[in-house]
Amino acid sequence: MTERIRASYLIETADDPRRAVEVMAGEQSSGTFVALPGETPELKERYGARIEKLELLEEAATPSLPGAKAGPVYRRCAAELSWPLENLGASLPNLVATVAGNLFELHQFSGLRLLDIDLPPAFAGRYPGPQFGIEGTRRLAGVASGPLIGTIIKPSVGLSPEATAEMVDALCRGGIDFIKDDELQADGPHCPFEARARAVMQVIDRHAQATGKRVMFAFNITGELDEMRRRHDLVEALGGTCVMASLNSVGIVGMVELGRHSRLPIHAHRNGWGYLSRHPLLGWSFPAWSKIWRLAGADHMHVYGIRNKFCEPDDSVIASARSVLTPMWDEKPCISMPVFSSGQTAGQAHDTYAAIGTTDLIFAAGGGLMGHPDGIEAGVASLRQAWDAAAAGIPLATAAAAHKELRTALEALGR
Amino acid sequence: MTERIRASYLIETADDPRRAVEVMAGEQSSGTFVALPGETPELKERYGARIEKLELLEEAATPSLPGAKAGPVYRRCAAELSWPLENLGASLPNLVATVAGNLFELHQFSGLRLLDIDLPPAFAGRYPGPQFGIEGTRRLAGVASGPLIGTIIKPSVGLSPEATAEMVDALCRGGIDFIKDDELQADGPHCPFEARARAVMQVIDRHAQATGKRVMFAFNITGELDEMRRRHDLVEALGGTCVMASLNSVGIVGMVELGRHSRLPIHAHRNGWGYLSRHPLLGWSFPAWSKIWRLAGADHMHVYGIRNKFCEPDDSVIASARSVLTPMWDEKPCISMPVFSSGQTAGQAHDTYAAIGTTDLIFAAGGGLMGHPDGIEAGVASLRQAWDAAAAGIPLATAAAAHKELRTALEALGR
Repeated sequence: MTERIRASYLIETADDPRRAVEVMAGEQSSGTFVALPGETPELKERYGARIEKLELLEEAATPSLPGAKAGPVYRRCAAELSWPLENLGASLPNLVATVAGNLFELHQFSGLRLLDIDLPPAFAGRYPGPQFGIEGTRRLAGVASGPLIGTIIKPSVGLSPEATAEMVDALCRGGIDFIKDDELQADGPHCPFEARARAVMQVIDRHAQATGKRVMFAFNITGELDEMRRRHDLVEALGGTCVMASLNSVGIVGMVELGRHSRLPIHAHRNGWGYLSRHPLLGWSFPAWSKIWRLAGADHMHVYGIRNKFCEPDDSVIASARSVLTPMWDEKPCISMPVFSSGQTAGQAHDTYAAIGTTDLIFAAGGGLMGHPDGIEAGVASLRQAWDAAAAGIPLATAAAAHKELRTALEALGR
Repeated sequence: MTERIRASYLIETADDPRRAVEVMAGEQSSGTFVALPGETPELKERYGARIEKLELLEEAATPSLPGAKAGPVYRRCAAELSWPLENLGASLPNLVATVAGNLFELHQFSGLRLLDIDLPPAFAGRYPGPQFGIEGTRRLAGVASGPLIGTIIKPSVGLSPEATAEMVDALCRGGIDFIKDDELQADGPHCPFEARARAVMQVIDRHAQATGKRVMFAFNITGELDEMRRRHDLVEALGGTCVMASLNSVGIVGMVELGRHSRLPIHAHRNGWGYLSRHPLLGWSFPAWSKIWRLAGADHMHVYGIRNKFCEPDDSVIASARSVLTPMWDEKPCISMPVFSSGQTAGQAHDTYAAIGTTDLIFAAGGGLMGHPDGIEAGVASLRQAWDAAAAGIPLATAAAAHKELRTALEALGR
């Protein structure tokens, strides 16, 4: 068994970078702080993590994170480690303990961020991956081309099942493709899951019978395992086409179970992502983190969007979207459909398309759709007009001149 | 239903602090970026998060995290929010999406850290909490007073089941109370779980029959749900008294399932803790984070230790240990036993006892025990001598003068 797990990191250290990375490699494989009798050269050779790459980047005068060993200069490096698969086997929970375990607080490092992981095919054999992905989502939503135009039920909390269904009714009349629960709404006592699912699906069914278009609604089934399974089964029984789960709430073991159980696309919500990623020299980059969930079965992955309302820069958003559209293995690509959201409007379609080069995505707008001066239908139309123009290479201004809904949307945005 | 969930935060903002916290409260309850028709005053009043406290702390000239709204000064504040339980119900997965969801990347904040949470009793009714805690652990380990003296199997990776059992044999002969698998070792192909459990328990059984003392071994059962259950059942069937799981690998849903299934104390490992906590103005503080796992059933919680080998400062270690020893509710305290580890030696017993005032803890040493010049038995003895002296109010130097093992240990440490 010679397959290896690889992980790349951005590190910052006042120590000699090679020595620091050797500590990191030792800590995460056969090493201890104090050399012990059992730690033979043969054992280290066979099971030790290997430094595959160490490349000096820029230097900094001050440490990015407190608590580290001090020095006159802090060197940033790109480092890659590898481990024999034999150390842990193809296990996602144990992978995380290895590539992202007791590393981030090693006193050698004033910065340490996991950038990417590369897994041997044994992982592809062990885990389901997305069952629906782009094609399955397009088929179920009845959207053959262009992005799925979507929105989120707002207010996030407070609507009754009936009020939720009324909003869904208005959105279906407006021609929407995709609607999701807010991540704050799962099974609150004032809006119980079952009552909400029944009320919403009745509306979606009615529209499907009238128009032939079955709007995809991502029901937030986040909860304990039996609850998630029961809610999934209810959504399926009611003819629903998508379930949603909050990754940081559910965790790897729960998501693997859901991925194995699910017969519907899983809309994976990353709320809490900021605590994992906001500091550029700490935590997780999305390409590494999302691979865990892609393997577990996430069909849709949130990436925010260009000029979003959060702190994530555009280049990070685009790198995230590209990463989930890049195959993990040729034989098993595990492609998830990226979900653009957070402050998205018709004004972002062209820049998004220019950066990503595909319409295989969900484009979810809240105020950018519901806030259209001429109502929801015009809001949906304006987003489609912007995306159709972007994909056809027609400038935004030209498209706006040709389409009243888009023109009005942009005017309302002050463009 | 008037019970409320409370969460306290440390925030940093260049904005008006009250306005910034209002955005945070709105985002995590009934709000949206753009005011929408459904967001009535009645709805906000009933479901909106409430600002319970906002206290100005120090000011900073530069932002702690990049990407935030800039300003001439960055104000740090202690803020407390509350939510009606009715928004989500007593659900740990949904609690996390509410108190630690899409908050950390709000552009109002150049720093945001969750410090603590306070949950209504409905959570106590819903979740098991630690089934064994301090008393159950003492009973199973046969240690009526003083800390459990423990160690970790090293090298972390590479030992066969037989080599692991040999090490356990030496540790049992040395009089140890507690041994744990390393978090990197669960079911690696070169050290399969079942073979390791059988080999180790055979040794522990033999010593128990000879001496009456059954050493507690925390078997790392981290894996998928069916694996964890099967491994737990095997450990129980073999007469083992503890299982271990990596919290960040397993996740909330998996830990709740394990907590409900387990008939043994759960040794909860926090590897990866650094990515959640290392930046002082981002992520999670231990008192908040550990409450999730205490409720799910963690009997033992890692806190590192005084003068540890990682970056965590002593005051944070002590606050962490105190927090898991503080009742969550009078009727259901959910006390977890703190586990001190990472660079711990006989030299830290007095300072630890002075800070924490109890010996209800596990004190795990690697090099600080195995590295004793006179062997394991002397290593274990030296740690007990230090702790007995600390608890009896006898200074370390006095105890060292009276006990050869302790004296030798301190000399070897250069004290």
